[in-house]
Amino acid sequence: MTYELFYWDGLQGRGEFIRLALEDAGAPYVDVAREPDGTAEMMAFLEGDVLDIPPFAPPFLRHGQILVSQVANILEYLGPKLDLAPKQEALRIAANGLQMTITDIVAEVHDTHHPLASGQYYEDQKEAARLRAADFRSARMPKFLGYFEKVLKQNPHGESQIVGDRLSYVDLSLFQLVEGLRYAFPRATRKFPRDYPALCTLVDKVRERPNIVRYLASERRLAFNRSGIFRRYPELDANAT
Amino acid sequence: MTYELFYWDGLQGRGEFIRLALEDAGAPYVDVAREPDGTAEMMAFLEGDVLDIPPFAPPFLRHGQILVSQVANILEYLGPKLDLAPKQEALRIAANGLQMTITDIVAEVHDTHHPLASGQYYEDQKEAARLRAADFRSARMPKFLGYFEKVLKQNPHGESQIVGDRLSYVDLSLFQLVEGLRYAFPRATRKFPRDYPALCTLVDKVRERPNIVRYLASERRLAFNRSGIFRRYPELDANAT
Repeated sequence: MTYELFYWDGLQGRGEFIRLALEDAGAPYVDVAREPDGTAEMMAFLEGDVLDIPPFAPPFLRHGQILVSQVANILEYLGPKLDLAPKQEALRIAANGLQMTITDIVAEVHDTHHPLASGQYYEDQKEAARLRAADFRSARMPKFLGYFEKVLKQNPHGESQIVGDRLSYVDLSLFQLVEGLRYAFPRATRKFPRDYPALCTLVDKVRERPNIVRYLASERRLAFNRSGIFRRYPELDANAT
Repeated sequence: MTYELFYWDGLQGRGEFIRLALEDAGAPYVDVAREPDGTAEMMAFLEGDVLDIPPFAPPFLRHGQILVSQVANILEYLGPKLDLAPKQEALRIAANGLQMTITDIVAEVHDTHHPLASGQYYEDQKEAARLRAADFRSARMPKFLGYFEKVLKQNPHGESQIVGDRLSYVDLSLFQLVEGLRYAFPRATRKFPRDYPALCTLVDKVRERPNIVRYLASERRLAFNRSGIFRRYPELDANAT
């Protein structure tokens, strides 16, 4: 059955974590809001009384009678179906916890350019953004990435994947996270290979997976831009020490 | 088997969402960090190489060989075991999505007093906090609570619970969310009964559940304070319109 992904058109955003899993698995899906009238259909789900339990926000996924909202929830649902989740319960739970930790850092990335009010312009909160971004670069980003690096290195099945002995949706999301950070903060991320060697090796391997290669070269992969979570504002970047 | 909850001593924080589920179910659990040497045990899990996959941060839960981190992940794990989750797959998934949406607003509540740097003092980011809190009170809080109110009212099984036909862990978390907001923002929340009548009725009913009554009167329930997520700083509060 075809998966229907609902996410804003024109940006990668949080929808991209879902796209990468669907694309890597070669699963049949429709990116609804990029179809004619798709955005209207998405808005009807969000605003209307079409569903008993409407989602709070995109992305959400429809699969037959099932509607799933929130990135980590969607990936937990898709994981076993796309063969992108560990089979053992303890590892599936660990994968889910790691994915929620990615959710946390993604929210913090968003707040580097919108620290005061998500509904207002970046230009109206630039000074606060400068401070928030400095803290993110020097304290938060190293804390999160150092954690992922440590978990990768400790994996008893080897550091080719973060959980278990095969690639999972968490690895695909780590790829997106690192690529997004590199786009947003080219200076602060320059020494990533020195500081997070296992993570960078993983990211390189994900980028070379055949279905990912095809996806990244396709029109379905939008470029990073200033509508997404990861935004390049040179004034929010600086060299790492 | 006894559940072991690991969370910082001295505050409700994110651990409280887990405590409420365990307490309502009357489940056997230990609040490890409140036991002698418990904090050291927790820190060993966080920092050391005791676990293949250490948690990023408290709260986390140990149950036999299973270790679960992240609030929504823990509640998803506990839900069926404590009989606090819907039985139908579509509703369990919806409950999980709602819980993650609670996670999102909780992070935004935290940022009302720490908009620039979570590792620095509130006193050093007061002006930014004033702006962030104003946006939270006028835009974000109504958006989230209006959403929960809507979902409650639309429940085809009645508005006594947010999902399905019986109380779930999501309802307990909504109780904590609303109580926390009332503590932090007594003025901005004064008209909650007018604006969110179904939600307020639900919160009142949760407060009267026998095990919750016992818990709230016990020493195990810490008072809200300025170490938690929900903090009362009068300068961050104002009357709602």
